[in-house]
Amino acid sequence: GLALGLWRRQAALAAAREDEEEKELRQRFMAPPVSGLRELRRRRRELRSRMELLIMETQAEMCRALAALDPGASFAVDSWERKEGGGGISCVLQDGEVFEKAGVNVSVVSGLLSEEAARQMRSRGKSLKAKDGKLPFCAMGVSSVIHPKNPHVPTMHFNYRYFEIEEADGTIQWWFGGGTDLTPTYLNEEDAVHFHKTLKEACDKHDLKLYPKYKKWCDDYFYIKHRGERRGIGGIFFDDLDSPSKEEVFQFVKSCAKAVVPCYIPIVKKHCHDSFTPEEKLWQQLRRGRYVEFNLLYDRGTKFGLLTPGSRIESILMSLPLTARWEYMHNPPESSKEAEILEVLRNPKDWVH
Amino acid sequence: GLALGLWRRQAALAAAREDEEEKELRQRFMAPPVSGLRELRRRRRELRSRMELLIMETQAEMCRALAALDPGASFAVDSWERKEGGGGISCVLQDGEVFEKAGVNVSVVSGLLSEEAARQMRSRGKSLKAKDGKLPFCAMGVSSVIHPKNPHVPTMHFNYRYFEIEEADGTIQWWFGGGTDLTPTYLNEEDAVHFHKTLKEACDKHDLKLYPKYKKWCDDYFYIKHRGERRGIGGIFFDDLDSPSKEEVFQFVKSCAKAVVPCYIPIVKKHCHDSFTPEEKLWQQLRRGRYVEFNLLYDRGTKFGLLTPGSRIESILMSLPLTARWEYMHNPPESSKEAEILEVLRNPKDWVH
Repeated sequence: GLALGLWRRQAALAAAREDEEEKELRQRFMAPPVSGLRELRRRRRELRSRMELLIMETQAEMCRALAALDPGASFAVDSWERKEGGGGISCVLQDGEVFEKAGVNVSVVSGLLSEEAARQMRSRGKSLKAKDGKLPFCAMGVSSVIHPKNPHVPTMHFNYRYFEIEEADGTIQWWFGGGTDLTPTYLNEEDAVHFHKTLKEACDKHDLKLYPKYKKWCDDYFYIKHRGERRGIGGIFFDDLDSPSKEEVFQFVKSCAKAVVPCYIPIVKKHCHDSFTPEEKLWQQLRRGRYVEFNLLYDRGTKFGLLTPGSRIESILMSLPLTARWEYMHNPPESSKEAEILEVLRNPKDWVH
Repeated sequence: GLALGLWRRQAALAAAREDEEEKELRQRFMAPPVSGLRELRRRRRELRSRMELLIMETQAEMCRALAALDPGASFAVDSWERKEGGGGISCVLQDGEVFEKAGVNVSVVSGLLSEEAARQMRSRGKSLKAKDGKLPFCAMGVSSVIHPKNPHVPTMHFNYRYFEIEEADGTIQWWFGGGTDLTPTYLNEEDAVHFHKTLKEACDKHDLKLYPKYKKWCDDYFYIKHRGERRGIGGIFFDDLDSPSKEEVFQFVKSCAKAVVPCYIPIVKKHCHDSFTPEEKLWQQLRRGRYVEFNLLYDRGTKFGLLTPGSRIESILMSLPLTARWEYMHNPPESSKEAEILEVLRNPKDWVH
């Protein structure tokens, strides 16, 4: 009688705990985390776990903020597994009222890398000592591209990621990378200032040198060489970040991730009901073409992703717009609104000091 | 009196000759050839001149055949110079009744190449001995991409090109490359057979081994690795062709170039008034997206072009469609017409034996 009662009480407690977890997952995240909530709790002090929770939270915050602005549409949520290890959660809203295509993707993958692949992952191309030519690695990140319908609402992209590679002697090489950047069809100075100011404030909490350095890195990275233009009006970008300490870099990345919603969502709210002409829509489509050119010709993340065995193509190419256009010899007239944004893409400006 | 009469007669003769040349140019070509008609006449026995005349004729034949099918639209003809040497003629018809975008481009460029650039030009990556690290070169070709509006009319691409590189000891390395291939939105077996049969007949005049070899090379080259699909249903493709002799290769290339109009134009005529549904147009737009993926991620010509200093970006990216589309997780239902073409793109078929 006593043993049975105890067993019943324990079973009831376990069921309640599961209900509680289920409820928490539904409230906090778009889907159960790749590593499992219980496992993340058990290893709660480890940076890997804290980063996985951060990227899951960032995904959920962004998806909820976007969905609230486009009530007719909803996110398709796909949890996928990678047979070589790990998996991800892709959330995509397509052909909504406000958004043409909005994707927010989390991936947490692990396995073995060749020395060559490991070197390519670091932008500085550091070489790593492998055991039998293979390096155990873990890579996780959240990435998102939002293409709105209205040409007065800019496209936005962000990505925050963390890598660990174990060398032959057991040393763990780790680093963070990331950034947030804006691609308007037309220039709105007030929006540009709001966007950059929000990112600068996130950086300034950690070190006043960060924003200017990562602002420039962003302008340099998103350069469409054959056009002599940047993809957009920038933001921040960094890679291979492994100092001053793991904890401090994590706190900085956390501040950046928390700035994603406040730097962008107010701009969407402000302009999503602006009226626009067919000519403005056409210019947006031509700029979408440039976005495709950058992503397929220059973006390291896209190239690396497409070359990685077992990578999920649909989640990588989610960054491409729903529609794009290429016209032969399209040159906007001088002093037009189209020429105004081109000027800023050719000669990046400082938006905040 | 006599001297003046002679001078007058000579001047009149020269004027008549110029009129004649002017007339001939207008009849035969889309614009005056890059090397000048008189210079080409003077060096008429040289292969360079014969190839330049062939690519000019091919451009004109194609443009006239296309314009005849789209009477409302007309080709914009741009002659351009390359400050490093040479130039080209780009003919583009955009947003017509029948064609969404049709481009036929001739370029004849020359100058000095770095050893690295020269090696990259040959698909076999042969190394070349340079004098002071620089190699005099000459490259010419005609290339074309035709994107029709109607989803029942396939997209078509062809390119025929000739290279000469002079090594330090004065040896001239030369080779030809080229191909013609078809990218339908929907499979029409009769069209596929007509297209391949016409190309096979052009090849068979020279050597029965050529068609099977270049048909396979085409299927291998136009492979979109990350999708596991070919860009289209193929045709022929070859590169680095330098045997059995310059004359014989030229005659083969000439036969291929002469097959361009008869392999494609009858297919356009047959289908350009076919009715189609919005769903068929949408599938065409998704296939256009794949075309962009291939051209920007894998095509050697596009990559080489974009990296070449002084290259004309608008003429290189003329190959991109006017409009394209990317949908997340688009999978056509089994046994649909969309699945039928996908099957052939995944597993190429033999269309003629």
